[in-house]
Amino acid sequence: MSSNTVLINTKQQIADKIKELKAVSGTHSPSIETVLKQLPQVKIEVDACFLSNPYATDLFLEHLNKDLIETNLLRRTLEFYPPQNHDVADSISTVTGIPAKNIFAGNGAIEAIQAVLHNFLAKKIVVIIPTFSSYYEFVGENAEVVFYKLKKSEDYKLNVEDYIEFVKNEKPDTIVLINPNNPNGGYILQSDVNRIITELNFVSNLIIDESFIHFAHESEAMEEVSCGSLIAANPNLIIVKSMSKDFGIAGLRAGYAIMNENRVAKLLKNGYLWNVSGLADYFFKLYANDYFRKEYDVVRKKYIVETATFLKDLQSIDGIKTYPSKANFALVEFLNETTSFDFTISLLADNGIYVRDCSDKIGLEGQFVRVASRTLLENKLITAAFRGKFQ
Amino acid sequence: MSSNTVLINTKQQIADKIKELKAVSGTHSPSIETVLKQLPQVKIEVDACFLSNPYATDLFLEHLNKDLIETNLLRRTLEFYPPQNHDVADSISTVTGIPAKNIFAGNGAIEAIQAVLHNFLAKKIVVIIPTFSSYYEFVGENAEVVFYKLKKSEDYKLNVEDYIEFVKNEKPDTIVLINPNNPNGGYILQSDVNRIITELNFVSNLIIDESFIHFAHESEAMEEVSCGSLIAANPNLIIVKSMSKDFGIAGLRAGYAIMNENRVAKLLKNGYLWNVSGLADYFFKLYANDYFRKEYDVVRKKYIVETATFLKDLQSIDGIKTYPSKANFALVEFLNETTSFDFTISLLADNGIYVRDCSDKIGLEGQFVRVASRTLLENKLITAAFRGKFQ
Repeated sequence: MSSNTVLINTKQQIADKIKELKAVSGTHSPSIETVLKQLPQVKIEVDACFLSNPYATDLFLEHLNKDLIETNLLRRTLEFYPPQNHDVADSISTVTGIPAKNIFAGNGAIEAIQAVLHNFLAKKIVVIIPTFSSYYEFVGENAEVVFYKLKKSEDYKLNVEDYIEFVKNEKPDTIVLINPNNPNGGYILQSDVNRIITELNFVSNLIIDESFIHFAHESEAMEEVSCGSLIAANPNLIIVKSMSKDFGIAGLRAGYAIMNENRVAKLLKNGYLWNVSGLADYFFKLYANDYFRKEYDVVRKKYIVETATFLKDLQSIDGIKTYPSKANFALVEFLNETTSFDFTISLLADNGIYVRDCSDKIGLEGQFVRVASRTLLENKLITAAFRGKFQ
Repeated sequence: MSSNTVLINTKQQIADKIKELKAVSGTHSPSIETVLKQLPQVKIEVDACFLSNPYATDLFLEHLNKDLIETNLLRRTLEFYPPQNHDVADSISTVTGIPAKNIFAGNGAIEAIQAVLHNFLAKKIVVIIPTFSSYYEFVGENAEVVFYKLKKSEDYKLNVEDYIEFVKNEKPDTIVLINPNNPNGGYILQSDVNRIITELNFVSNLIIDESFIHFAHESEAMEEVSCGSLIAANPNLIIVKSMSKDFGIAGLRAGYAIMNENRVAKLLKNGYLWNVSGLADYFFKLYANDYFRKEYDVVRKKYIVETATFLKDLQSIDGIKTYPSKANFALVEFLNETTSFDFTISLLADNGIYVRDCSDKIGLEGQFVRVASRTLLENKLITAAFRGKFQ
């Protein structure tokens, strides 16, 4: 048996196993833990499937070590019941300036998404595709999902006029904007978000998911943007925010949603007791400190700058098209006969790089993978591997 | 100003602050974190409000240190997305012997309770009181809650005959048994649980909460009991299990429910993605190891023995009545004019011991506190403090 045959066998085995794992993971990638457990022969050097700022993870772990591990206070955090939802909301209020009564603290943003869709969606939701699949998968049997399709000819960028017209015609009770959008990174300017909110004020639940907004910016100074402050004037507005991406702490499960106080009260009236873990509460308390936010802002900006360079590098590779993005990832399309599944397996087997095969993403026409920006060094490995495959 | 006045002032301040915290905590005690933050002048020596085996916390932390902290694998656990629900169910399946398709992994048992009540309860639920308040508070507006009251004259022990008769008359679609019951620790023998399941098989949702069952036992060998295996023959059975008490890891948020596979599938169909954190998943993986379960069994039995001695000591104190309990706590009634609120504040201010004032527990007639068993030393401090107040 030649070494070539072994390699091919291994690739085939990886492909078979990934297909199998994918079948039970629904429209989400099998987690890296699951892949590593099932494929011990694979050495993942770079998890470019995972959308997070690794420098922020470093920063968080540095504080966690100092505050909880070195002091032995970790025990207290794990042993005792965590504070209730309204206590966690107090920390988030300090960060956002939004009153605590308007904040629902979640076990990840995904819990807030589920809570909103299960409790407030009535009959019809308009979802922009391609998108994060939970926004249609979590919809119950009694509600209708209508897709608004971003156009490939417009690089999957939202056409604000056309979208407003579409929603006015469909008359849904719920709509969702992810800004920047996942999986393409398309960004809607705050002025356009404002216009959408104004024009579509008849919609009962106007969900804006800002989970990737810390990577976007409109100013030279790269200041954070958000439409959270519009909550006061727009009781139909619901802002969803994950902490997993910008802080690189997906395993912690931390997120929140900002919404009208009556909605928060309704959710907390008969549920969501102790839904935020002791460690996630520690994160929110840390985030409420000025010194931490200052340190975080440095690593946020560093990562934004490196991501921009990375996406530019990817854009310069022939044979693929890297779509414009204001998030920490980009959609990459294969312009030749390459299929995204084969490419994903090949990149994993040959280079130890795990990217997101987008063949299950509805609303995309063609063969796409989503590539996350990681550390400077990892980004260089990714671009080198892509170049190697296409040159 | 005499030192006495200062003491009285401090007690009054503590009482006022506790009242204030209680007002925003609903029918749950303010967490120890919240109390410590709001009352920095109070030194809590013993948290006898918190129902957990502290030796199991020691054991878990020992493994966590070795497996995650010393190896630097903690980062991976916090940074990446945790496995999905079915992956976590695999670990729980290894422990329980129940097929993974019958297991819903929860962000604490409380999430499973919420999921069951919000998704399966139809019109009417019979709840035994006194009880854990979420079983009636989480019921939505469209369902009726009927209370079955345990009798003080029977020491709040469930009268199985009478209960079966009551449920047959009320014809609810959902019933809940907590075994052992919270807040009194009353235990229903497995033979009686079996009879209830057989006689009340017309009930659509028969919830048995076994969150404290590791502390109960029917044999000399103190083997664990559970009615989990009855799931196969009883599709209406739902077993709820918290990990917070027996493993002393409430801050981690880990729990599960065992139920018919169609129910698990219904819950996971449009929600509960990544609802178990990376660290809670680590706990379940550890729990799935034989060596850990053997070590755990040692500390479980040690704690059971010490708890029995502790409760016996409390029972020997005049002026209070300590109710029979097979859990890790006991209900203590004041036979004189003492009110539970005043006693709680006085015990906190004078002895640094925090017990659960039960004045908000519906179904209790009299002045009660609930006292948790802690370490051997702490238990001695508690009994000494009680003796000091009553002798």
